[in-house]
Amino acid sequence: MALAVVTLAAGKGSRMKSDLPKVLHPLAGRPMLAHVLDAAAQLDDAQQHVVIGHGAESVRQQFQHLDIHWAEQPQQLGTGHAVAQAMPAIAAEDTVLVLYGDVPLLQSQTLQQLLALTAEQSLALLTVELDDPSGYGRIVRSDDGQVQAIVEHKDASEEQRRIREVNTGILAVSAALLQQWLPQLSSANAQGEYYLTDVIAMAVEQGIAVNSLIADNSDEVQGVNDRQQLAYLERRLQQRLAEQLMIEGATLVDPARIDIRGQVTVGKDVYIDVGCVFEGQVHLADGVHIGPHCVIRNSQLGAGTKVEAFSLVEQAQVDEGCSVGPYARLRPGAELAAGAKVGNFCEVKKSHIGQGAKINHLSYVGDASVGAGVNIGAGTITCNYDGVNKSRTVIGDKAFIGSNTALVAPVTVGKGATVGAGSVVTKDVEDEQLAISRSKQRNIAGWQRPQKSSD
Amino acid sequence: MALAVVTLAAGKGSRMKSDLPKVLHPLAGRPMLAHVLDAAAQLDDAQQHVVIGHGAESVRQQFQHLDIHWAEQPQQLGTGHAVAQAMPAIAAEDTVLVLYGDVPLLQSQTLQQLLALTAEQSLALLTVELDDPSGYGRIVRSDDGQVQAIVEHKDASEEQRRIREVNTGILAVSAALLQQWLPQLSSANAQGEYYLTDVIAMAVEQGIAVNSLIADNSDEVQGVNDRQQLAYLERRLQQRLAEQLMIEGATLVDPARIDIRGQVTVGKDVYIDVGCVFEGQVHLADGVHIGPHCVIRNSQLGAGTKVEAFSLVEQAQVDEGCSVGPYARLRPGAELAAGAKVGNFCEVKKSHIGQGAKINHLSYVGDASVGAGVNIGAGTITCNYDGVNKSRTVIGDKAFIGSNTALVAPVTVGKGATVGAGSVVTKDVEDEQLAISRSKQRNIAGWQRPQKSSD
Amino acid sequence: MALAVVTLAAGKGSRMKSDLPKVLHPLAGRPMLAHVLDAAAQLDDAQQHVVIGHGAESVRQQFQHLDIHWAEQPQQLGTGHAVAQAMPAIAAEDTVLVLYGDVPLLQSQTLQQLLALTAEQSLALLTVELDDPSGYGRIVRSDDGQVQAIVEHKDASEEQRRIREVNTGILAVSAALLQQWLPQLSSANAQGEYYLTDVIAMAVEQGIAVNSLIADNSDEVQGVNDRQQLAYLERRLQQRLAEQLMIEGATLVDPARIDIRGQVTVGKDVYIDVGCVFEGQVHLADGVHIGPHCVIRNSQLGAGTKVEAFSLVEQAQVDEGCSVGPYARLRPGAELAAGAKVGNFCEVKKSHIGQGAKINHLSYVGDASVGAGVNIGAGTITCNYDGVNKSRTVIGDKAFIGSNTALVAPVTVGKGATVGAGSVVTKDVEDEQLAISRSKQRNIAGWQRPQKSSD
Repeated sequence: MALAVVTLAAGKGSRMKSDLPKVLHPLAGRPMLAHVLDAAAQLDDAQQHVVIGHGAESVRQQFQHLDIHWAEQPQQLGTGHAVAQAMPAIAAEDTVLVLYGDVPLLQSQTLQQLLALTAEQSLALLTVELDDPSGYGRIVRSDDGQVQAIVEHKDASEEQRRIREVNTGILAVSAALLQQWLPQLSSANAQGEYYLTDVIAMAVEQGIAVNSLIADNSDEVQGVNDRQQLAYLERRLQQRLAEQLMIEGATLVDPARIDIRGQVTVGKDVYIDVGCVFEGQVHLADGVHIGPHCVIRNSQLGAGTKVEAFSLVEQAQVDEGCSVGPYARLRPGAELAAGAKVGNFCEVKKSHIGQGAKINHLSYVGDASVGAGVNIGAGTITCNYDGVNKSRTVIGDKAFIGSNTALVAPVTVGKGATVGAGSVVTKDVEDEQLAISRSKQRNIAGWQRPQKSSD
Repeated sequence: MALAVVTLAAGKGSRMKSDLPKVLHPLAGRPMLAHVLDAAAQLDDAQQHVVIGHGAESVRQQFQHLDIHWAEQPQQLGTGHAVAQAMPAIAAEDTVLVLYGDVPLLQSQTLQQLLALTAEQSLALLTVELDDPSGYGRIVRSDDGQVQAIVEHKDASEEQRRIREVNTGILAVSAALLQQWLPQLSSANAQGEYYLTDVIAMAVEQGIAVNSLIADNSDEVQGVNDRQQLAYLERRLQQRLAEQLMIEGATLVDPARIDIRGQVTVGKDVYIDVGCVFEGQVHLADGVHIGPHCVIRNSQLGAGTKVEAFSLVEQAQVDEGCSVGPYARLRPGAELAAGAKVGNFCEVKKSHIGQGAKINHLSYVGDASVGAGVNIGAGTITCNYDGVNKSRTVIGDKAFIGSNTALVAPVTVGKGATVGAGSVVTKDVEDEQLAISRSKQRNIAGWQRPQKSSD
Repeated sequence: MALAVVTLAAGKGSRMKSDLPKVLHPLAGRPMLAHVLDAAAQLDDAQQHVVIGHGAESVRQQFQHLDIHWAEQPQQLGTGHAVAQAMPAIAAEDTVLVLYGDVPLLQSQTLQQLLALTAEQSLALLTVELDDPSGYGRIVRSDDGQVQAIVEHKDASEEQRRIREVNTGILAVSAALLQQWLPQLSSANAQGEYYLTDVIAMAVEQGIAVNSLIADNSDEVQGVNDRQQLAYLERRLQQRLAEQLMIEGATLVDPARIDIRGQVTVGKDVYIDVGCVFEGQVHLADGVHIGPHCVIRNSQLGAGTKVEAFSLVEQAQVDEGCSVGPYARLRPGAELAAGAKVGNFCEVKKSHIGQGAKINHLSYVGDASVGAGVNIGAGTITCNYDGVNKSRTVIGDKAFIGSNTALVAPVTVGKGATVGAGSVVTKDVEDEQLAISRSKQRNIAGWQRPQKSSD
């Protein structure tokens, strides 16, 4: 018996006021639907079916790397109708688990528990207890606790409205039963839609026991219909991710002011100050210290490396004991060897910076190879672009580049060489040479400062 | 029957510990009093009266552009006394609405509901239910729900103290009644002040029904007496503004970490990351993306423009599809045509940047006109200031400015011209010319590095 | 009768997953233990005893400047055992107050109240009422309110579990009694540890009344066992510090988004925007305005000084009316005289900046003395480092340094002197002279732009 997960992802989400299909709205940096598919993918023997409608093409494209059976629901005629679109690809002996692309925080453990109930029974429903159940379908149970009915809020009696357990819409059921029930659904209701929920009544009528699981955490079954709900779940998810980092041994100065969009792995005694944002795959080794208001994307930072305030590190590889920032920008392809330092208002791109080399102030280093122990003076620019082509700059170990220097690539500065401040280096410099390009300074007495123009 | 809104704004606010009059303390970037006057200005046929005392001159000056009847209350002898100062300018047939300059979140809809009650009756009181009503005057009602009295906390019986409905001080009443009642107020109380609240007892005594409205939201009637309360209301207001932006279809990654001081209008699918601050009039067109920790003031950003982390945009006009930042500073008068790019550690001031032009790194561009498709190399400076005068730099379409170049204004670089890296350009460059000012590079062998001085 | 404060600081804190001893984990920038020792130091006639074990050496080293009796507890055999290690150094006539190095928010006022109770009695216990007391030892009292026993959660009856008052472990008792009781403690329990708490039972048995104080605020007695609890207390402490600043008259735009790690003193009408971090000793004089996302460390800012967004100020002395930032970095030894201005992407280190001098854009000024009224053009670099030695740059009053200039130290530019843009200044410039080092600009017609290389 295989598992067919059917995720409904066809809705427009009018209240999002967006051109983006609702399920593609990002949560922690990834489409909501990706979170649902992740949880589903962790289930054993699961075949993924996704029902798409609004923005079908863009949804399909985002997930083309996954093995998914796509079902189109050109018209949105209700959840029952949506599930029906997926049924042709599902075998009668399968179990069907129905999920929603806009209910993104559901955890696979919860689904596993729900499926365990399905194995015993033929239908299992996920419910939740809410402090304020207004508007939701109430779970009405018999005296012995069996689910008897789901009563919509507007149809509920005074007494039923006091029930705090409500339907989440998430259920698992044998495909055979669904094949029997779905064609019997009726759209004779106010919305003119076919509701999947109505299968519960059919089960009860046929004497098929409806098992149920009450979700521990209402966030897991919270759907997103507007941007406020999206922001709410973003925060809940971020809180969960922050908790996880702390459990792994990172100090977070303020767990409410960290954003993780991807996966952050940490060594021992990592410290993360306020206002930091992490995106993609980030690894912070033992003792890494991240100062306030940094952004780190898809990078590895070696043990003991310190990133100071206002730094932006993207697709960089930083070895141990480096010092980055404040106000440093490491761009894709920046590689810092151990103990290297990139300081304020510096930008490094596609460059290898050697062990202990220093680029401390106001410099641009791109398409370069900087040797060990090199000192790059303030205001140094590697002129790597002539308008059409990019060229490389090579600087040998222990070279000293004076301030305000332009290195016009392709160019090589040899080991132990020195470049005088303010030079424009266009020709290669041999090892140990001093290169200088500088006009003689003239001091002119009696010079008149400009006068204020009449304008 | 006209409406006279009397806003009390004479208090010193000792607990603010400030030299600034209390009602001028900013909330969402504007004086508290401005928020009250805004709400009052939305009422029909309203004449504004403001009673001032402490810091009267500075208050008056801040609002000199508005049509306000100012009444001076040189000594602060209570709310009744304050209202009395405004009465000479109010006709007996008017309705008087009493507001407070330090109760800034009151909404005009609430005032309209209150005034609707006054139309029927001759006195209408705004009340609120508090979870903890300690310290406030309780609203005592008869069995049929009529307001009978306001009993101050210290005078209240055990039973009365359990009443959670309290007086807000905000009321609407016919001017004729006020004219009759105000002279009868007594200062024979602990504070020696004339309390406006005492008119309620007079109304009840005279058999004049006191109608009342219970405010939905206690924040609306919350006053500010110290900086904690100011900070509290700042957060509540920011939350309200964030909700509004989300309703309009913007994605806010964290609604608790956005600050709006002014008015932000948004197109479709605007994305705003954490830690951003908006001031003044800001428009973000469709698909604008604002990265983390940006500050945007009085600027328009065109469709699809992306502002990356740590950027500061002020009085700038940015067309569609531009790329700004990270660490970009657009200052007043920066105009970016479509697809222009201003990158890290760049400052642009009073300059037009042409279509698709790029200023990517460590440059200062001020008082300049940069043509379409121009590439400005890293470390380029427009030398627009000679100590007394500012001059302009003009760069033609598709020009290429090499890195570390100084353009000494006034100067023109022609279309398609090229400037060599490290040049100081003092003379105009014709179209398609190459300009260069560079000393010959000398490579000197056998050079001795400086030695560590004994010092 | 002297007071012996015994602070237990020997634990490993396994759940911290850290190489750092638990009590050294920072809270508001200082080790947790420092907060406890601060509170203890405020008590009269207090002698400090600290029991150390895990990481004993590093703990001792951190506090070597304090007068502390260190007691080693090489094996952690329980709180009773820990206190016993300190007893040999304590006289029988002393009072012993037992504190915990991982309970950092305890206030000295609370301790004073507790000690006042000990003076009357011979044992006083600090307790707290918790909404959820699960897991804690309940305080069982007799009908007349006397403490009868502490019953551990697992041993408590149904009725006892409903008791919300729990033991904090903090107590004060005469040393004589402790000397008698500690040897009687038994480790015959599940953990095999000697529990200090068991002395309560001994006191009751001997008819010695156990006085008690219920802590007002449960945060004060909250211990830290993992990073989540550490983060929680960090936030509670920050909230307390923010409240204090507001009471002193500072406007905090968001009290939940300020971090104070050290001591911030403020004058009147200081304004602090969102996301700011303060470290060490910081003084902000009257009317100082700090923009969003600034970091200020160990610095004094004079009256009316404005620090704009994204600035980092460290060990700097800034006089009144200065303008710093946005994106300005003042490093140790930066001194700004009144009205000086350091603008975007500028770094100032060990330099005196004279009255009204301006360093507005993209400059590095280190080891310099800049006179009053000087204007430093964009992209100016003081070349203070030749690879081994640092040298000074001196710029006289009212000098004008053109943009993109390198000043090669040691060098002096005289008063009223002017340096042309793009110069490299290696020789001193006399007062009023114009210095210039610039190659002649050549404009070359018919120049061919580089072609796209085939690569």
